[in-house]
Amino acid sequence: MRENNVRNIWAKGGAVINGWLGIPSSVAAENMAQAGWDSLTADLQHGLVDYQAAVGMFQAISTVPNTTPLARVPWLEPGIIMKLLDAGAMGIICPMINSRPECEAFVGACRYHPKGYRSFGPTRALWYNGGDYYKHSNDSVIAFAMIETKKAVEDLDNILSVPGLDAIYVGPADLAITYGVEPSGTPDNPIVVDAIKQIVAGARKHKVAAGIHCGSTAFAKQMIGLGFQFVTLMADNALLAGAAKSAVGDMRQGGGVKPGGGLY
Amino acid sequence: MRENNVRNIWAKGGAVINGWLGIPSSVAAENMAQAGWDSLTADLQHGLVDYQAAVGMFQAISTVPNTTPLARVPWLEPGIIMKLLDAGAMGIICPMINSRPECEAFVGACRYHPKGYRSFGPTRALWYNGGDYYKHSNDSVIAFAMIETKKAVEDLDNILSVPGLDAIYVGPADLAITYGVEPSGTPDNPIVVDAIKQIVAGARKHKVAAGIHCGSTAFAKQMIGLGFQFVTLMADNALLAGAAKSAVGDMRQGGGVKPGGGLY
Amino acid sequence: MRENNVRNIWAKGGAVINGWLGIPSSVAAENMAQAGWDSLTADLQHGLVDYQAAVGMFQAISTVPNTTPLARVPWLEPGIIMKLLDAGAMGIICPMINSRPECEAFVGACRYHPKGYRSFGPTRALWYNGGDYYKHSNDSVIAFAMIETKKAVEDLDNILSVPGLDAIYVGPADLAITYGVEPSGTPDNPIVVDAIKQIVAGARKHKVAAGIHCGSTAFAKQMIGLGFQFVTLMADNALLAGAAKSAVGDMRQGGGVKPGGGLY
Amino acid sequence: MRENNVRNIWAKGGAVINGWLGIPSSVAAENMAQAGWDSLTADLQHGLVDYQAAVGMFQAISTVPNTTPLARVPWLEPGIIMKLLDAGAMGIICPMINSRPECEAFVGACRYHPKGYRSFGPTRALWYNGGDYYKHSNDSVIAFAMIETKKAVEDLDNILSVPGLDAIYVGPADLAITYGVEPSGTPDNPIVVDAIKQIVAGARKHKVAAGIHCGSTAFAKQMIGLGFQFVTLMADNALLAGAAKSAVGDMRQGGGVKPGGGLY
Amino acid sequence: MRENNVRNIWAKGGAVINGWLGIPSSVAAENMAQAGWDSLTADLQHGLVDYQAAVGMFQAISTVPNTTPLARVPWLEPGIIMKLLDAGAMGIICPMINSRPECEAFVGACRYHPKGYRSFGPTRALWYNGGDYYKHSNDSVIAFAMIETKKAVEDLDNILSVPGLDAIYVGPADLAITYGVEPSGTPDNPIVVDAIKQIVAGARKHKVAAGIHCGSTAFAKQMIGLGFQFVTLMADNALLAGAAKSAVGDMRQGGGVKPGGGLY
Amino acid sequence: MRENNVRNIWAKGGAVINGWLGIPSSVAAENMAQAGWDSLTADLQHGLVDYQAAVGMFQAISTVPNTTPLARVPWLEPGIIMKLLDAGAMGIICPMINSRPECEAFVGACRYHPKGYRSFGPTRALWYNGGDYYKHSNDSVIAFAMIETKKAVEDLDNILSVPGLDAIYVGPADLAITYGVEPSGTPDNPIVVDAIKQIVAGARKHKVAAGIHCGSTAFAKQMIGLGFQFVTLMADNALLAGAAKSAVGDMRQGGGVKPGGGLY
Repeated sequence: MRENNVRNIWAKGGAVINGWLGIPSSVAAENMAQAGWDSLTADLQHGLVDYQAAVGMFQAISTVPNTTPLARVPWLEPGIIMKLLDAGAMGIICPMINSRPECEAFVGACRYHPKGYRSFGPTRALWYNGGDYYKHSNDSVIAFAMIETKKAVEDLDNILSVPGLDAIYVGPADLAITYGVEPSGTPDNPIVVDAIKQIVAGARKHKVAAGIHCGSTAFAKQMIGLGFQFVTLMADNALLAGAAKSAVGDMRQGGGVKPGGGLY
Repeated sequence: MRENNVRNIWAKGGAVINGWLGIPSSVAAENMAQAGWDSLTADLQHGLVDYQAAVGMFQAISTVPNTTPLARVPWLEPGIIMKLLDAGAMGIICPMINSRPECEAFVGACRYHPKGYRSFGPTRALWYNGGDYYKHSNDSVIAFAMIETKKAVEDLDNILSVPGLDAIYVGPADLAITYGVEPSGTPDNPIVVDAIKQIVAGARKHKVAAGIHCGSTAFAKQMIGLGFQFVTLMADNALLAGAAKSAVGDMRQGGGVKPGGGLY
Repeated sequence: MRENNVRNIWAKGGAVINGWLGIPSSVAAENMAQAGWDSLTADLQHGLVDYQAAVGMFQAISTVPNTTPLARVPWLEPGIIMKLLDAGAMGIICPMINSRPECEAFVGACRYHPKGYRSFGPTRALWYNGGDYYKHSNDSVIAFAMIETKKAVEDLDNILSVPGLDAIYVGPADLAITYGVEPSGTPDNPIVVDAIKQIVAGARKHKVAAGIHCGSTAFAKQMIGLGFQFVTLMADNALLAGAAKSAVGDMRQGGGVKPGGGLY
Repeated sequence: MRENNVRNIWAKGGAVINGWLGIPSSVAAENMAQAGWDSLTADLQHGLVDYQAAVGMFQAISTVPNTTPLARVPWLEPGIIMKLLDAGAMGIICPMINSRPECEAFVGACRYHPKGYRSFGPTRALWYNGGDYYKHSNDSVIAFAMIETKKAVEDLDNILSVPGLDAIYVGPADLAITYGVEPSGTPDNPIVVDAIKQIVAGARKHKVAAGIHCGSTAFAKQMIGLGFQFVTLMADNALLAGAAKSAVGDMRQGGGVKPGGGLY
Repeated sequence: MRENNVRNIWAKGGAVINGWLGIPSSVAAENMAQAGWDSLTADLQHGLVDYQAAVGMFQAISTVPNTTPLARVPWLEPGIIMKLLDAGAMGIICPMINSRPECEAFVGACRYHPKGYRSFGPTRALWYNGGDYYKHSNDSVIAFAMIETKKAVEDLDNILSVPGLDAIYVGPADLAITYGVEPSGTPDNPIVVDAIKQIVAGARKHKVAAGIHCGSTAFAKQMIGLGFQFVTLMADNALLAGAAKSAVGDMRQGGGVKPGGGLY
Repeated sequence: MRENNVRNIWAKGGAVINGWLGIPSSVAAENMAQAGWDSLTADLQHGLVDYQAAVGMFQAISTVPNTTPLARVPWLEPGIIMKLLDAGAMGIICPMINSRPECEAFVGACRYHPKGYRSFGPTRALWYNGGDYYKHSNDSVIAFAMIETKKAVEDLDNILSVPGLDAIYVGPADLAITYGVEPSGTPDNPIVVDAIKQIVAGARKHKVAAGIHCGSTAFAKQMIGLGFQFVTLMADNALLAGAAKSAVGDMRQGGGVKPGGGLY
């Protein structure tokens, strides 16, 4: 069984630098995989990515040795969770886990009997991990429940105490919205920051790893300072748009080239 | 007939800021198209892009109003040149034009009789440009011959005087190689710089627009200073890789998070 | 925020001419988009279309300025509803809404808190609509509940009074079947016609817009006469098959060319 | 060996009704295949279709028993001609055959030694035709040289006498252009009509079958009257656009629904 | 209406030899279809196959006359069940049917009113079956409930007595796991064998056909001996891997070629 | 620079066991890559594989450490040769090299100046090989000229003495055809066997490695015995078809299950 790099980093007390894939292309994914992320997550929720594209993206990630492939699913729906695990995702991030039964349903979908109700039939997961996948997968695959609503924060202990839950993942934008605050990738509103602190404290209490979506490296470092062990930096599409706008902007500014003409 | 934004900028004496697409994905292309480029070129030569992907990428570019779709073809082969024009490319960049007959063959592939031998059957080009495409396309479509070898520089006047040639495009890396210099996206070797200057001077003499591939905005500005009217900034995959590596590097540096653990 | 053309037409008291896309191809979609529809719906239920194909189809629709992209989802499943909204659908048609709780679950999936439980993370929706999407999307995105069973007709007031429901959409074939009548695209059975009239009357009473699937332009005009404000004409595959059969039929008939020979 | 339906119709003295596929979708192709064409041609020249899409389209055509799959290649390039034959095309239409050497090169690419230089390795062609494909393919596969320029008409006897040439195919639009006439799908300019008549007469003289691209069923019938044995009706994208525009136009006309409102 | 080959074989008292498709490729599917299977199942659960790939695979199966296309869905989710039926699947295998309500929900998704709640809109199913599909599909489409857990075995009579259930399908690996036994494709553990025998006996009692997943032809023959009427042999990916490993192994063994050199 | 496994084996005096990929699927390719081949060749000539599919297939091969990715191109066309090299092919097999100028044109397309005319712009080749690709690629990339006609055998010395030619590759089927013999994957006709022996002797004389396409492991072993250092075993589609037919055949034979019924 191939080692799960995310679990290894956690075991050493480190924090995982996670990249995020919203472009449905194995080429963009391999491109991203050159950057040395600890893990890369195919985002099937808000990314423009479907299952079949994700398979190619997992293959692309597998061309580099030490980046763990993860996936965020569109919703708590067992079909897609299990399909992504069979395709080689070594962890699943599930949005909108707002109650204990939802958390139980999610964790169960990630585990074979008797720890869950996952159906057996790994295919690419076997190619990626080796022939002893069945024996070790319940201990290797990581279940991340997204805590991203006021309701979930209020029910935190109940959710975090579900047996087999490995980690939580904070979506700051949805969290803000449910507290009546405008969404942001780098939230500084005290209400939101306070909720984030509650979540990380709860995770620590239940010995559950804490991850969070971050809109900048500065915010990510701040979150590691708060105790998060898994930080996601901007998605590929955000990185690409940022770099492109910056290049175009640099050309246009300061006596540069205006759209539609005007010499430098 | 839709106006060709590149020709408009040239008519006003401006320089075109061109983006470059090497990721075979209409989503990455639409993402790039948000950045306000004057034109975007699907690269079917060194990009990981084939014809069918390019069609989707042209559709993506067409979702924004003022960015002209161009394509670089893999080689001087009439089939792919004409297919891309029919798919809506408003200009073709053709690699390795090293002689006058090659330049004539290239220009002819971009024009209907009597100016060339392009076969008639626009499909998406009609959707994009309107019903009078036949009447205006010979004057709208731009033929860019790549001048990128010592041999081509030595035969420059012959190549540049081919009737109907609109523009040339410099590939500094191949140019360097054929002069025995290591390839670079921002060449500063005097031999290469001198060849570039010869090319732009020749273009000016023949009233042919001059374009060049650039590895940085600083180099692009320098090239506009030399008289280039069309500068390409780094390809989407280079922009994405740069941004990703920068984000990961920022996290890892200065007491940051090391791969495989080590707390921030 | 880009204006929603469907809402604009309704605001002016007009009826929307909607096209239907069942061929999973961005090229077929752009081809359809040339015809000047007010809106075009990617059909992920009975069309041969999946999410990834729909993304390309939305890009194709976005190449024309005034046609609003909509989608019909396969079923009341939150994952796909939210994915399509993030991909830029400006309205969702959801099949088989047969009860008030189903209608509430559907409307909630289309709206951010506090009006619903949609998760935040527009990507292509931002590209298409602009940076203020979050602020306006709850008011722009249209939720169409399909009323297409006897059970739904019997519970019409309960369903139509769900807050935030913008529109209903009649599927005459399923409606017929649940009344024990053979399905038809242009129903004239009095039982079915009577049910359609009940639905449009209910919609009017609850100030909910009424849409319907139509098998001919004649039937569509008749439905507008009944008060429908949104009529779908035949799907692309039906239009194409009709045109092809008509062309072949014309060649074969009246002394024409028989399959397998026989001169004209 | 499966019989080639096109050859069978010709043997009986009949004319082939050929459909044309420019939408790169196996679904659109299967949709078209329902209409009962004698043959269907995947157009890799002006259609928006590449090799990989064509494979799926050939599979779609193979779901019906009596429609022969053909392909038009982008240009006289041996690679794509042979790939399409291996994929199961039972005939190749090659554009712009303007000289005897071009015709010889084309015919040779379609035949195994000693009649040509096609490389051996049918794959899907074997699945489609059966295990004796090698033995019969040289006699079954049809080579159609496009005669579509003034130059080709002037050299007609030389071209048509190339051994192994089965058929010619007229592209009336390119033909018109090279005679200085505006392109049309239903040409009536006497210069063009006269050239067409010369071509069909030459074909008859050399016992080569004559085919032509037609913009309407009326024109197709007229061409059969002139002696053509193979007529192509409008491409799928033209049929679809025509049907869609007709449906929208019908809704908008005569007090109908205007874009942007206005009740019927 | 095209006859359902699986039902025909059952009517004659025969056993169906079913192939299994886990490679998301219409080419691999057509390749498999050359082997003369009675039916071929696109596996959207553990196969690496999504809906859009399955459409192409069904087209590939339709190129041969007597192999019935089936699909296994990822989970009991109505959207994907109905989409696959509309795409031409003539039977659905649904995993993890562990209770009577689950079985009822599954069977209902496969049938039009009044036998179920399937929504009407066949598209490819019409092309494949003909215009009278609506009239006959409730009697032709086969609903296979997977019995693959201890819980399901314990509730067997309740599940098997659901009206309209045509067949059950045993997944021996999941069955083993839920009995605490290691999964195997050719189970010989008495606990598992006994459970299998209970299932086939129950099926016989309720006049429901019994199918099973088999890891070898020997096991498949044994299962037919037990009374199974539908046996699946190894998936395409298992067949391909087996053949490839066998070829490589043969080359390397017995003084053969070692990886990294060593002459034969 | 990553080491080229094929060159390593040759340096050690070993023979390379090469697999062959004709199914256009990254999943089938990864499946094949599990079998431990020394190299895997994406076949863009007779395989059903285009450039874009090949990119995904190269990614799939890169998920395993010691299998070198190669490609066979459709024809001696520079565009596709260079595209595949940029995509990461570490060797190119080019069909139908029948003369010295053809061989020179082929070898030149694989090498940067001054050894050839390959254009610079590796993308995926850099990801796969590392940043020093330019420095080492001329020495790592392998150029295999296919010797597969009587004409080529007659001109063998001229072809084999082209500087930079690394290897030849025999296509026994085309070779047989040009000698007037029926094509076979395991030729035993003395004329063909004699030609094969001439080729391997010529290769040895010119210190060019010799490879050959083999229809069985027995034939491959025989060829290694003759001095071949590179043997290809059956393509994935042949392996899959063989395994499937064998499984079905086993079920049907000896009182087994007949198609259409008949109990075992």
